[in-house]
Amino acid sequence: MFSAQTVIRDLKNIRQQAPLVHNITNFVVMNLTANALLSIGASPVMAHAVEEVEEMVGLASALVINIGTLSRHWVEAMDKAVRAAEKKRIPVVLDPVGAGATSFRTNTARHLLDTGPVAIIRGNGSEILALVDSGARTKGVDSLQGPEAAVEAGRELSLRYGCAVSISGPADIIIRNGETIRIENGHPLMPRVTGLGCTASALTGAFAAVNSDTLEAAAGAMAVMGICGELAAEQARGPASFELHFLDWLHLVGEKEIKERLRTGA
Amino acid sequence: MFSAQTVIRDLKNIRQQAPLVHNITNFVVMNLTANALLSIGASPVMAHAVEEVEEMVGLASALVINIGTLSRHWVEAMDKAVRAAEKKRIPVVLDPVGAGATSFRTNTARHLLDTGPVAIIRGNGSEILALVDSGARTKGVDSLQGPEAAVEAGRELSLRYGCAVSISGPADIIIRNGETIRIENGHPLMPRVTGLGCTASALTGAFAAVNSDTLEAAAGAMAVMGICGELAAEQARGPASFELHFLDWLHLVGEKEIKERLRTGA
Amino acid sequence: MFSAQTVIRDLKNIRQQAPLVHNITNFVVMNLTANALLSIGASPVMAHAVEEVEEMVGLASALVINIGTLSRHWVEAMDKAVRAAEKKRIPVVLDPVGAGATSFRTNTARHLLDTGPVAIIRGNGSEILALVDSGARTKGVDSLQGPEAAVEAGRELSLRYGCAVSISGPADIIIRNGETIRIENGHPLMPRVTGLGCTASALTGAFAAVNSDTLEAAAGAMAVMGICGELAAEQARGPASFELHFLDWLHLVGEKEIKERLRTGA
Repeated sequence: MFSAQTVIRDLKNIRQQAPLVHNITNFVVMNLTANALLSIGASPVMAHAVEEVEEMVGLASALVINIGTLSRHWVEAMDKAVRAAEKKRIPVVLDPVGAGATSFRTNTARHLLDTGPVAIIRGNGSEILALVDSGARTKGVDSLQGPEAAVEAGRELSLRYGCAVSISGPADIIIRNGETIRIENGHPLMPRVTGLGCTASALTGAFAAVNSDTLEAAAGAMAVMGICGELAAEQARGPASFELHFLDWLHLVGEKEIKERLRTGA
Repeated sequence: MFSAQTVIRDLKNIRQQAPLVHNITNFVVMNLTANALLSIGASPVMAHAVEEVEEMVGLASALVINIGTLSRHWVEAMDKAVRAAEKKRIPVVLDPVGAGATSFRTNTARHLLDTGPVAIIRGNGSEILALVDSGARTKGVDSLQGPEAAVEAGRELSLRYGCAVSISGPADIIIRNGETIRIENGHPLMPRVTGLGCTASALTGAFAAVNSDTLEAAAGAMAVMGICGELAAEQARGPASFELHFLDWLHLVGEKEIKERLRTGA
Repeated sequence: MFSAQTVIRDLKNIRQQAPLVHNITNFVVMNLTANALLSIGASPVMAHAVEEVEEMVGLASALVINIGTLSRHWVEAMDKAVRAAEKKRIPVVLDPVGAGATSFRTNTARHLLDTGPVAIIRGNGSEILALVDSGARTKGVDSLQGPEAAVEAGRELSLRYGCAVSISGPADIIIRNGETIRIENGHPLMPRVTGLGCTASALTGAFAAVNSDTLEAAAGAMAVMGICGELAAEQARGPASFELHFLDWLHLVGEKEIKERLRTGA
């Protein structure tokens, strides 16, 4: 049963074990992603060369694949990395950034799912919809859909690929087979900072590295995101000071804040 | 007639329409560029793969091409993106980062202008000079020339390519054919933050997305840059706190600040 | 004899000459690296295309090669850049990010050393060990070893390649032949910010651009890093506010702070 105690336990384990999270991610967010993982207590590494991804996955406790700023050579590296993750039995988190915006992104995301295994898909409403419905469209990388509109698509993806699906938005909805967790935390400034969705995926990798229950891991990451977002917003004047306080709070957040603030539903 | 009202109107339209600005830009500034566009209220997307640039341009309201950290494959994508922008009749902003530093950059910038159409060129004095004078040299990506030294070159580029030319510096000079606007806002800390020139180009794209008058759009972007720079400097202790407050002010700046602070000339 | 006066003099020269430091570095840290160099008063440029690296090196006063997020094409550009630096007789700083994590990184770092000349190697304990001992391993890009464990390896590298070796950690140890300088400054929050090791390498390039004594240059850079880290920590709540204050302090730090705080040993 998912609760504040689940999140507190996983967070403690991340800080004690400092799991290595291997990211193949986009150029826009690499720095933020690494800093978010360091702030929460994990150990990030970024590597995308076909010459080294398999070896790097061999050191890692989770693999996060993010398809923003994609190009062809990177897809080859993603494939190799996923194969290595499968062999090493570490969880793979897929962030289908901009699926629906171009067929290159939609097709790459579907290809990665088809060749899998992917443990957790983490995307916004538009992206999750685009993975099942070729007619769905996004506006670049921002969502045109709240997470509620993508619940059916999420359920379908979960069943088809045997994975958890984490749909972010004003509330976050995490689905696995028939189960659902809603995380009601967060703040409207969050989509005003680039890459906070990508950050959510990276933190999902950190939680999946210490908790093999993918539904709990995905929900725990979104809970910490949302709670740190609320705490940051209390001190922010705009998106940049929000981002700074958010990262500081990933480092500072603990039992007290999680117990007081976590709002879940189903 | 360019005035505070022009800037206020365009800014309001950016915030209401959240135009998608497609950036093909350099690795150093991708994160800052995306955050600056989000802060001002636009919707940024970064995509450079030849497989998807045309489709992404099809969703966009402006295209910003920035040649920093260039490599050969990117030039191919830039060409495709410019063709798609021409077809869709959306404005193209070109930032010739480091033109004059290497012949690869100078030649790429000239190639993009020759194959155009480019609506607005936004560069520093050295870069604008290098586009017309092969003997002109820059020191890496920092300008050795104030904007005044590049006015003649800017005028020549404007006539040759039928575009507006926005030259940044202690004062910014925007030229289109016989017309000139000077923006006297700004702060000496601005060149101490990497990528604020690139940010100016991205914001120029956002203004061009909502105002088809390229002279006004280019001047409006530089006005907001300069005003937010002044506001940020009042709270900054150094370049990093300056950058944070600058980004916050892009989110906060409104009618009051623009009316009180805009200083223009001709 | 290395002292506070050495650091103060070199820092003054960096601010007066604003040497152009050419970086071929990884995607994660490009923005931070450029901002750190700007904050301290140097002029950064990032360029990695084989078409332009030689020409860009021709403008530079130091070359910094960092092998994080490596791929094959970049190695070709690194080779060309090192050849151009040798011809122009400017110092080359090598940061072997993640050496020991994958054979691609270890081999590339060794290849660059073998073809050299490299003036200064700047790495953490695990990376320095991996350059001499193929059995040494790192966990991704974070060090599993304090600098003390790598002193023998550092001495061997210094003798073999005729370079200075700067090993960062809780204390920093800089070695050249029989000489050693210890810098005892710094703060535990520093490894919680991504890319501060890479920043140290870039600043080492700036110091090497104004001081041909590689031992002094490497030590001066680590001294400023450590002192600004201590000053930043006094104002920080977490890793992100630490990074902001650190960058501000690179801009603000001067004679007073260096005299008061520098702690060296041998």
